[in-house]
Amino acid sequence: MQNLELKSYKLENFKLKSGKVVSLNLSYLAFGNLNKDKSNVILYPTRYAGTHLEQGYLINDKYPINPKDFFIIIPNMFCNGVSSSPSNSPKNIQGPNFPLITILDNVRAQKTLLKKVFEIESLKLVIGWSMGGQQAMQWASYYSNCVENMISMCGHAKTTDHTYVFLEGVYAALTSDPQWNKGNYEEQPNNGKTTMARVWAGWAHGQDWFREKKYIEDGYKNADELLDKLWNKIYYHRDANDLLAMIRTWQEHDISKNDLFQNDFSKSLQSISAKTILMPGKNDLYFPPEDNEIELNDISNGELRVIPSSYGHYAGAGKSKEDLDFINRAIADLIS
Amino acid sequence: MQNLELKSYKLENFKLKSGKVVSLNLSYLAFGNLNKDKSNVILYPTRYAGTHLEQGYLINDKYPINPKDFFIIIPNMFCNGVSSSPSNSPKNIQGPNFPLITILDNVRAQKTLLKKVFEIESLKLVIGWSMGGQQAMQWASYYSNCVENMISMCGHAKTTDHTYVFLEGVYAALTSDPQWNKGNYEEQPNNGKTTMARVWAGWAHGQDWFREKKYIEDGYKNADELLDKLWNKIYYHRDANDLLAMIRTWQEHDISKNDLFQNDFSKSLQSISAKTILMPGKNDLYFPPEDNEIELNDISNGELRVIPSSYGHYAGAGKSKEDLDFINRAIADLIS
Repeated sequence: MQNLELKSYKLENFKLKSGKVVSLNLSYLAFGNLNKDKSNVILYPTRYAGTHLEQGYLINDKYPINPKDFFIIIPNMFCNGVSSSPSNSPKNIQGPNFPLITILDNVRAQKTLLKKVFEIESLKLVIGWSMGGQQAMQWASYYSNCVENMISMCGHAKTTDHTYVFLEGVYAALTSDPQWNKGNYEEQPNNGKTTMARVWAGWAHGQDWFREKKYIEDGYKNADELLDKLWNKIYYHRDANDLLAMIRTWQEHDISKNDLFQNDFSKSLQSISAKTILMPGKNDLYFPPEDNEIELNDISNGELRVIPSSYGHYAGAGKSKEDLDFINRAIADLIS
Repeated sequence: MQNLELKSYKLENFKLKSGKVVSLNLSYLAFGNLNKDKSNVILYPTRYAGTHLEQGYLINDKYPINPKDFFIIIPNMFCNGVSSSPSNSPKNIQGPNFPLITILDNVRAQKTLLKKVFEIESLKLVIGWSMGGQQAMQWASYYSNCVENMISMCGHAKTTDHTYVFLEGVYAALTSDPQWNKGNYEEQPNNGKTTMARVWAGWAHGQDWFREKKYIEDGYKNADELLDKLWNKIYYHRDANDLLAMIRTWQEHDISKNDLFQNDFSKSLQSISAKTILMPGKNDLYFPPEDNEIELNDISNGELRVIPSSYGHYAGAGKSKEDLDFINRAIADLIS
């Protein structure tokens, strides 16, 4: 991903779901081979606190997502510090003044990009992990006619109350730092980021991962070393307001909260016509399989494939060869 | 519990597992009818951030734990603000200077109390929920000849790495408050307690409870109201150093970390001769059933009864009639 040219599309006077009108930059990678009828497009949005740089694990000449055969677009989610975000915006929408962005706002912006820059009308596949998986589900529902196949890895169609509360906890942890100053900080509130990270650690890995002492495989002697070496500074290179804005995007997520579905959650799921695979991790604490299972009651062409992984939420990140193979098999079943 | 006389036993020069020697007060309730051969004693230790006042839900003339038939002793766990704690100790061991207390320290103090005050040598039943359940397991292992029956509700024989990390998160949340000042506060760091509470909320209830919207049954419209009305101030009446000290007790827990078992975890479990029921809640995020299941491989006379409850960790708190009935059935099976 590092060697590809990052491009940016300017959305002028873009109307957000909240009604606010703003100009936003959508940064993206686009690469691979676009065929003549533009029927081989894969859209692969980013996750919480991630960027295009961390999406490479599913892209490879030997994998089903193969740039020789497909045209791949990786849009950076708003507020991730690459696309328009609290940290990189003009003064009027800077920092704590940045507007709330929803998953649907992201998806609508991506749709505009595809249309205006590439004249692409439909997707062979939309796929994502975590908040990327939320965007995939929003795409397949809101633009159901445009999506042929959809994979949501560790993602839900609606943020559950439990996840909302978990996110309130990490939000409270970051904002506990007096240096945060309601978002008007002079220097990054890094102590707050460490607090947030130490809270997040237990949620991210899940019980199985610890029980099987996977941290040793990952190079950490024990839980303390894991926290100190992996977690404490994990968010230091991200801006605090960006991190908080993405939490609000996540909490707000519900594919039915829009003009089209008017909060009718079943209807928003029933609209999904794409061939769908929902792939939760078996021990994902914030996207547990049970919620995907309930969603599938309303998805006519959908299938549940629980990733039999000990990696908790990271099941969808392909951290082990087994997980990666499992994910690639599902992708191949849809597009190969 | 409110009407019973709280008594206190002074342990002079009590040697802690750490080697430190301190004088400690062990506060307790003792009530019911002690029979002649003192064979009808039930020991029922307290939980994290709880006291004798919250133990009443399993005690009733119509329940198996019936004061007419049994002699019931409820010892307050050290650091809970009633027995010796950072908040109520003489200057030399006050606040942040209070020594680390282990579950075994609690259990050894309780054993001394039983012997010295009541000349009680053995227990008909030791039972507890959460950290009370940890104490029950430590009793049945360390004093295996003295325990006839044991029930651990939502408790493990050893704090798992995952729970250790979850606890590091809540510890970080409380201590993020600058007013905490490494334990040398002038006024309670209540902002830190709120941060900790908001982090704890997702862990305590679990996903099922939210999915089934049990918060509505409990009188809260939505997740925000639950956090604001139930959680925000839930720890305000506890002392911050007490709360932190109990976290350290919890993290340190391992029934094999002592002179008798020398870190041989299997051996410490194998020593349990009591008729044992381990009762995790099916969706308890910090005491998941899987770990009890593993423990039972080494307990010869033990049984797993997963409380089929949506109450997460509160499964053992008897919040619903079904949960309470389930727990009482198990108690009756052992002692009635």
